[in-house]
Amino acid sequence: AIERAKILAEPGVFGVFTMFKLRPDWDKAPAAEREGAAAELTKLIEEHKNNVLVDVYLTRGLKTQYDYFFRVHAYELDKAQTFMRAFRATTLGRHSDVAETQVGITKALNYITKDMSPGLNSGLSSATYTGPAPRYVVSVPIKKDAAWWNMSIDERLALMEEHTAPTLAYLVNVKRKLYHSTGIDDIDFITYFETDDLKAFQNLMISLASVGENKHHVRWGDPTTLGTIHTPEKVVQALAE
Amino acid sequence: AIERAKILAEPGVFGVFTMFKLRPDWDKAPAAEREGAAAELTKLIEEHKNNVLVDVYLTRGLKTQYDYFFRVHAYELDKAQTFMRAFRATTLGRHSDVAETQVGITKALNYITKDMSPGLNSGLSSATYTGPAPRYVVSVPIKKDAAWWNMSIDERLALMEEHTAPTLAYLVNVKRKLYHSTGIDDIDFITYFETDDLKAFQNLMISLASVGENKHHVRWGDPTTLGTIHTPEKVVQALAE
Amino acid sequence: AIERAKILAEPGVFGVFTMFKLRPDWDKAPAAEREGAAAELTKLIEEHKNNVLVDVYLTRGLKTQYDYFFRVHAYELDKAQTFMRAFRATTLGRHSDVAETQVGITKALNYITKDMSPGLNSGLSSATYTGPAPRYVVSVPIKKDAAWWNMSIDERLALMEEHTAPTLAYLVNVKRKLYHSTGIDDIDFITYFETDDLKAFQNLMISLASVGENKHHVRWGDPTTLGTIHTPEKVVQALAE
Amino acid sequence: AIERAKILAEPGVFGVFTMFKLRPDWDKAPAAEREGAAAELTKLIEEHKNNVLVDVYLTRGLKTQYDYFFRVHAYELDKAQTFMRAFRATTLGRHSDVAETQVGITKALNYITKDMSPGLNSGLSSATYTGPAPRYVVSVPIKKDAAWWNMSIDERLALMEEHTAPTLAYLVNVKRKLYHSTGIDDIDFITYFETDDLKAFQNLMISLASVGENKHHVRWGDPTTLGTIHTPEKVVQALAE
Amino acid sequence: AIERAKILAEPGVFGVFTMFKLRPDWDKAPAAEREGAAAELTKLIEEHKNNVLVDVYLTRGLKTQYDYFFRVHAYELDKAQTFMRAFRATTLGRHSDVAETQVGITKALNYITKDMSPGLNSGLSSATYTGPAPRYVVSVPIKKDAAWWNMSIDERLALMEEHTAPTLAYLVNVKRKLYHSTGIDDIDFITYFETDDLKAFQNLMISLASVGENKHHVRWGDPTTLGTIHTPEKVVQALAE
Ligand code: HEM
Ligand code: HEM
Ligand code: HEM
Ligand code: HEM
Ligand code: HEM
Repeated sequence: AIERAKILAEPGVFGVFTMFKLRPDWDKAPAAEREGAAAELTKLIEEHKNNVLVDVYLTRGLKTQYDYFFRVHAYELDKAQTFMRAFRATTLGRHSDVAETQVGITKALNYITKDMSPGLNSGLSSATYTGPAPRYVVSVPIKKDAAWWNMSIDERLALMEEHTAPTLAYLVNVKRKLYHSTGIDDIDFITYFETDDLKAFQNLMISLASVGENKHHVRWGDPTTLGTIHTPEKVVQALAE
Repeated sequence: AIERAKILAEPGVFGVFTMFKLRPDWDKAPAAEREGAAAELTKLIEEHKNNVLVDVYLTRGLKTQYDYFFRVHAYELDKAQTFMRAFRATTLGRHSDVAETQVGITKALNYITKDMSPGLNSGLSSATYTGPAPRYVVSVPIKKDAAWWNMSIDERLALMEEHTAPTLAYLVNVKRKLYHSTGIDDIDFITYFETDDLKAFQNLMISLASVGENKHHVRWGDPTTLGTIHTPEKVVQALAE
Repeated sequence: AIERAKILAEPGVFGVFTMFKLRPDWDKAPAAEREGAAAELTKLIEEHKNNVLVDVYLTRGLKTQYDYFFRVHAYELDKAQTFMRAFRATTLGRHSDVAETQVGITKALNYITKDMSPGLNSGLSSATYTGPAPRYVVSVPIKKDAAWWNMSIDERLALMEEHTAPTLAYLVNVKRKLYHSTGIDDIDFITYFETDDLKAFQNLMISLASVGENKHHVRWGDPTTLGTIHTPEKVVQALAE
Repeated sequence: AIERAKILAEPGVFGVFTMFKLRPDWDKAPAAEREGAAAELTKLIEEHKNNVLVDVYLTRGLKTQYDYFFRVHAYELDKAQTFMRAFRATTLGRHSDVAETQVGITKALNYITKDMSPGLNSGLSSATYTGPAPRYVVSVPIKKDAAWWNMSIDERLALMEEHTAPTLAYLVNVKRKLYHSTGIDDIDFITYFETDDLKAFQNLMISLASVGENKHHVRWGDPTTLGTIHTPEKVVQALAE
Repeated sequence: AIERAKILAEPGVFGVFTMFKLRPDWDKAPAAEREGAAAELTKLIEEHKNNVLVDVYLTRGLKTQYDYFFRVHAYELDKAQTFMRAFRATTLGRHSDVAETQVGITKALNYITKDMSPGLNSGLSSATYTGPAPRYVVSVPIKKDAAWWNMSIDERLALMEEHTAPTLAYLVNVKRKLYHSTGIDDIDFITYFETDDLKAFQNLMISLASVGENKHHVRWGDPTTLGTIHTPEKVVQALAE
């Protein structure tokens, strides 16, 4: 089976985010079907455990366009595709519409490396999350303009140092992960965060709005995903109520 | 139970605005079901009274995309999520689609404080609403550009003083409340107003269109919410007619 | 009852424009229901005659997004809301979806007054419509940029004089009415015209495209409403065929 | 009855383009109904032959948003409206949704006249289509910016000469027609072309993309309509298969 | 019958890309119908083999707006239209909605020719794909601004050389094909790629984001199509599960 800690730390891993909205007919599905949905998903995840790592999140009550979303990791993208197709054939999948899909790849650091920015790299590597088990997930799709991509590496490094310096302190209460999407999706990056302190997260985002890098964003959210973190089984049970 | 005046005055409180549109099948629901919907909502609000403060407003007849909306306050966002999910399982909720959701947090003043702008702060603090019980609610989601967020505090203060100086006089007939959303939603602010004098409000908004701060808005409404203020029970009765 | 000529000439009056599209199920409603819809609307308008003035227009065959629209005038906005909600509960209303809503307020002149622009004001006040009973209605929602609203009154006056000078001549074959919407809707103005000569109207609009004021438009239509003028009864009969 | 060659050559004629998409329920309509649809349309066109000239085109298989469209000419717009409403009450019309509507008026030349541009006017007037009976129709809605409309007639003439000089040669294999829409629709122009050589047409459009006039386009297509030319009867038979 | 290698190498060939999304009612179609769909498509492709070359791809699980797409080549566009219309009448076609259509024409090189850029042309002509049979397809619709089209051929050549120099190396693991769409669709180009190495492709796209040509893109994706490559029969079987 895929090892969670390993696949979540490696570069070269595919991340597929799929947002789903329940159709009105979910309400009318027989209670027995809805009650079996959680076990059905658990079984499906187990069947695919050598191919994909699966997380599910609850956005119902906080977002308009979707009620829950999947974050699937795989070493090969077609494995993620096969899993998501199989999910769409389950009871829950058949009663849901896809609202949004984002595909990205994890990579090694481009800017804040030991060579290019040793001080900030040291802060980055030594930071530890010390908050409670995070209740909240936030995911922000991002696209930068052609001017950004045409800047020299030194110019971009300076702006990424401005991004990192004021935000290192937040690593005590915000967990972060980055995926690269340019060319395989309509965004440049998928960003993913877990926190138990949304007020701190909101201040973190104001810091990032306030640096020069932000002048190069042509997309920053739209949609910003906000939800709560539970086991896949609990998410489905919440949807089946 | 949550204390209304307290939670509406404190910083660090989550506000969740959810706009709903009735589906055509609401019409066809049995009259008995529709007539029970008001009591069902009242009961639900009572069940959650220790977790959330709930206001409901009627926009049907004035807005295209939604017929009514909720404004829910909570000290913890997951409590607001749980309440909204429970509402969506009620008779009225099951016959409605979510049209728009906005999430924000209340904060202490950033600009017009005793230290930074004592004269205007004094006007702000001493202002009193003297109009009749307000019949109307207006809510305007707002997002500012990267240039705004990159300006120094002094530059932003000057523009917020231009915002405040011509608008203090309206506090006699407009009640206002501000929520901060950057990073947890696709907007920077949710603004909320109650008034009995929409002509005064319309002039207030022209004043705010006419100051330098407005050059930094990339979103100012879209949608502007306009509705009438009633008890939750009365809103549901109006929808059930 | 509301006096038509009076309410259509006064400032401080609310105008609510609501555009409706027939749902496919209108076709399948029993003929008896559809045939009763015109009388049902006439009756409703009569019931609300002390609160609102109601005009209805036919856009089916000329517009995509809607088949007919209401223009309702009231001294209090909540009266207009109540009437529109009541309409939505009628046979025709229940078989229609709202496609667009616009809310505005009439006001006294801001620019072309006796004091500020006496020559053009004189032309404005003395103009008379001499065309046949107008068959056509056009309505154009308009929003101006922050640069416009930040200009001095003198700068804006100069541009509004450029707007008025070439258009006075059209008042012989175009009737016009203006509503102010900034802050209570997502537009700044609702404009309303009646004419029997659309070729003249089209040339009028080219004149207005060709002046400096047009450089400040961030929205000019979208949608431009175009329809034909009939009694409410005739509009509903046309829809019921 | 309206004379085809006459109405297609005159200025001051209204053109109404209406794009339709078949609803899924068309499939399920009884075969007898579908087979009668072509004759039903022929009969309707005959009934209105004194009021409107009607062309119908097939876009199914080439366009997403619509399957077929009407181009209707009339001396009075309300006649076109009445015809389109009557069409929507036919079998085919009742099983279709309107996807797009465009309204325009034909006019005399504004730029390439004998007086203003004699050389190009001569080329324009003497050009003859020498290609085979055209199989293809293309229609491109166009809107120009405020800067264009604010330019002097001399500046605009220079740019229209740049438009015309490289395109005259294409008149041997492209037929063209222009409608003016400013103010009665959300576009400035509807352009209409027939050709049997889409590769030539594609090169023609590259020529027009490459001139200064193109810098003033705020809309150039969206949607670009592309379809095939048949009798109305044949279009409906194709849709009924 | 059309020869695959020939039609895929020739200029002056029409390419029609049609993206489809399964409707919820596909689920409810009788199993026998769904199981017959693959053979039905194979038969249809055979019937049209003298007119069109047909490829089908699976995007379900990776894209929101569509589940599968067709890429059809023909020497005459009306042949492609006829085939796509026939497909829409099949079991699978009747249970699908069209989500996106793109039409383009293949052409000879405009820039990197032996005469204009001999070095890069040599690299282009000698490059060979040496990767495994590609599993993945990517297609990116592209539109450039009026400034691009107004540049001289020398200016555009310089920018296309910047496009080609860093990308030649990728031809060992990326197959590419280009279609020209200006004027017959709302884009300028359809680009099409096959690869077995999406990480390499993602880096290739970063290279293209980072050159001056990218400053002229007004559309670059939206949507970016990403899917897997199978025989048409296998795609339909995957959809029928
Ligand atoms: C929790 C505090 C955060 C820290 C310490 C942090 C730090 C960093 C660092 C060091 C990098 C550079 C990685 C590299 O060298 O390739 C980076 C990249 C990035 N971060 Fe953050 N970040 C934080 C929060 C956020 C947030 C809240 C967002 C936005 C929603 C965000 C968006 C991004 C993006 C899009 C990139 C990639 C930029 C590019 O490669 O052009 N980060 N971050
Ligand atoms: C009723 C009269 C009003 C008064 C007296 C008023 C006053 C103020 C003050 C003093 C602040 C600064 C708060 C701080 O220091 O952090 C503020 C912020 C704000 N106001 Fe108003 N306001 C009024 C009406 C409005 C209206 C009608 C809107 C727009 C719809 C609006 C939108 C905002 C926004 C978005 C902010 C936050 C700006 C930022 O932090 O960048 N206000 N207002
Ligand atoms: C029939 C000929 C027309 C005449 C004589 C005319 C005249 C005027 C005048 C005198 C004003 C200034 C009112 C004031 O002082 O507050 C005005 C305002 C306005 N007109 Fe017209 N107009 C005509 C047609 C149109 C048309 C066809 C449109 C656009 C669709 C239009 C849009 C507007 C708008 C939006 C305003 C308000 C502008 C502002 O306050 O910033 N007008 N018009
Ligand atoms: C077949 C070759 C074409 C020729 C010879 C041609 C020629 C002309 C001429 C002479 C005019 C000026 C009419 C006047 O004086 O008022 C004109 C206007 C126009 N043409 Fe073309 N044209 C051609 C193709 C096209 C195409 C393919 C398009 C775009 C899709 C197009 C779009 C327009 C528009 C929008 C106008 C009106 C512009 C304005 O009045 O501002 N034309 N054309
Ligand atoms: C695999 C490596 C690639 C190579 C070697 C390559 C090479 C080229 C060459 C030589 C041309 C010029 C053709 C001519 O002379 O007319 C061209 C054009 C083009 N390429 Fe690429 N390309 C590659 C990848 C891509 C990718 C990934 C994209 C974007 C999604 C792309 C988009 C385009 C477009 C849109 C054009 C037409 C540009 C125009 O005519 O203005 N190419 N490419």
